[in-house]
Amino acid sequence: MTTIKNQQWIYIRHPDAIVGPEHYELRSEALSTSLSAGEVLVEAQYISVDPYMRINQSLKPTYNELPHALNTVQTAGVVARVLASSVPHLAVGDSVEGMLGWQTHARVHHSVLRKLDPSIAPVSTALGVLGMPGRTAWFGLTESGRPHAGEVVVVSGAAGAVGSLVAQFAKRHGCKVLGIAGGKAKCTWLNESLGLDWAVDYKAHSTAETLAAEIKALTGGVDVYFDNVGGMVSDAVIPLINRRARIVICGSISQYSGALDQAEMGPRFLHHMLYQRATIQGMLARDYLHRMDEMLAIVAPMVKAGEIVFEESIVEGFNQLPVALNNLFTGEHRGKLLVKI
Amino acid sequence: MTTIKNQQWIYIRHPDAIVGPEHYELRSEALSTSLSAGEVLVEAQYISVDPYMRINQSLKPTYNELPHALNTVQTAGVVARVLASSVPHLAVGDSVEGMLGWQTHARVHHSVLRKLDPSIAPVSTALGVLGMPGRTAWFGLTESGRPHAGEVVVVSGAAGAVGSLVAQFAKRHGCKVLGIAGGKAKCTWLNESLGLDWAVDYKAHSTAETLAAEIKALTGGVDVYFDNVGGMVSDAVIPLINRRARIVICGSISQYSGALDQAEMGPRFLHHMLYQRATIQGMLARDYLHRMDEMLAIVAPMVKAGEIVFEESIVEGFNQLPVALNNLFTGEHRGKLLVKI
Repeated sequence: MTTIKNQQWIYIRHPDAIVGPEHYELRSEALSTSLSAGEVLVEAQYISVDPYMRINQSLKPTYNELPHALNTVQTAGVVARVLASSVPHLAVGDSVEGMLGWQTHARVHHSVLRKLDPSIAPVSTALGVLGMPGRTAWFGLTESGRPHAGEVVVVSGAAGAVGSLVAQFAKRHGCKVLGIAGGKAKCTWLNESLGLDWAVDYKAHSTAETLAAEIKALTGGVDVYFDNVGGMVSDAVIPLINRRARIVICGSISQYSGALDQAEMGPRFLHHMLYQRATIQGMLARDYLHRMDEMLAIVAPMVKAGEIVFEESIVEGFNQLPVALNNLFTGEHRGKLLVKI
Repeated sequence: MTTIKNQQWIYIRHPDAIVGPEHYELRSEALSTSLSAGEVLVEAQYISVDPYMRINQSLKPTYNELPHALNTVQTAGVVARVLASSVPHLAVGDSVEGMLGWQTHARVHHSVLRKLDPSIAPVSTALGVLGMPGRTAWFGLTESGRPHAGEVVVVSGAAGAVGSLVAQFAKRHGCKVLGIAGGKAKCTWLNESLGLDWAVDYKAHSTAETLAAEIKALTGGVDVYFDNVGGMVSDAVIPLINRRARIVICGSISQYSGALDQAEMGPRFLHHMLYQRATIQGMLARDYLHRMDEMLAIVAPMVKAGEIVFEESIVEGFNQLPVALNNLFTGEHRGKLLVKI
């Protein structure tokens, strides 16, 4: 039996706070290359790190009943190249995308793979603007946020993979868009590269009150709040909502490093929901998996036409995966963070 | 010019905490009884006290931009008897309902009055089950809560004017209903008179964790949470929501005595919205004012047929109004609290 060396990052230890290399172990296995009917052998080209990975390490039930199992390969989206195929529609050299995890190789049934068209955009976009983050941004904004031209849309985590797309989609809907991000460099990028109306550096504020005052002075009030961050940033934005505002809870990244297990305290705000008859809607990418084709039909032409900024921060080397995941919570990246193998 | 002595409770002082008699002053005026075209002179029979009155005394903007003006008559719904009329459809002795405030008499244009039909139910119900609280309960549950038969509906403030109706409407929708109230007597009433599936006394719990454990053990999880109370009760219920749960924010009575101006701290919970892709919707009675006829067409026959328990706690005497308002936040009443003049 011919085998190939498959390197894997195994999730071995629950993080109490920020996740990093100490929670993973690098292992190798000999992977048989013999294909059963319908199987494909692939080699990873790009592997994703995403904030949801830390949620899934929470000890309490989250979107899944059970946390990510210990001593298994870290779950992740991967763009891979076909090394061998038993099916006619996937040829050697084709690029595919699938939930293959943090490993260099995989032998899987073709049905779990999505074939990519490199003529539309670099295949790495299948993990970003033309993948899960793009789907989250598009449907989160349009279905839960329901923006109307002229409305004020505020996006937290606006320099991130999802936030940077939400902000641009909202601009295309004719909204006035304010992006919130950490640091001057990200804010300059939001203004200059993404063309947002306003960018606010939350790190320049030590309290929600002064952050709120800046956002209020710029926008006057908020019709759609697309939240990836939670915590102090949401404390600032939520009291600024206008009548019938829509708040989309897409993430709470400020809470992921421990506070999902032991909730942080924050000011109660539900009376604002009452006053403004506003809506909060939680959403996940998986809710729109069945509408991936719809998103691609709309967004891929924008990408091909160069109308969407989809910055990718690419870290080189399979060995860097746990560090890259850690950087999601501590780093200075913009757009989608990827590891190139 | 003929006049009549009109007694009025004037709102004279902003309450920092619980509202009570010290924030009101009794005054008299000489009210002219001469009717202009379209006017009606009425005498109050029942005057309402409602939790929203305390919200409107908050110093920060609430559902209204400005708080209730000082040195004016306390706003309130009133059921009154016609003393003199200039319009053919209102005769002396007819009962009407309108936002006439805390005063014994009023001379108003007929268009602000709703004529009542005493053959359906006691006219006092125009301030309860067939009035603003009934409208809030009906549309809050059906439009924001969207209950389905077999689902679990949890109602906080379940012994109150709105909550007791929501709980019964939910039972009629085929839901399993858990009511949360303060004290054993109210819980016995919820079980025995309202026929709820479960009643939980939040005062028997000193932490949200033990309250949550009791609710979880009884229901298994929550599909609709109709919240009139907020605070610790909501801290207990929100982490128990099921997939695609609907949370209706109809009130936050635990926060009204000061915490609307200076927010209380509570555990952050928005990650639960994410996990369950749940919705929070704030609603106010005024959102459905234009559908009052629809509510009456549905609910009045239930009331006439004796199928709805609409308990009224009636305090006697115009002088008791500020005390009765205070009792809303401290008292042991069930159902709708009213003052009979």
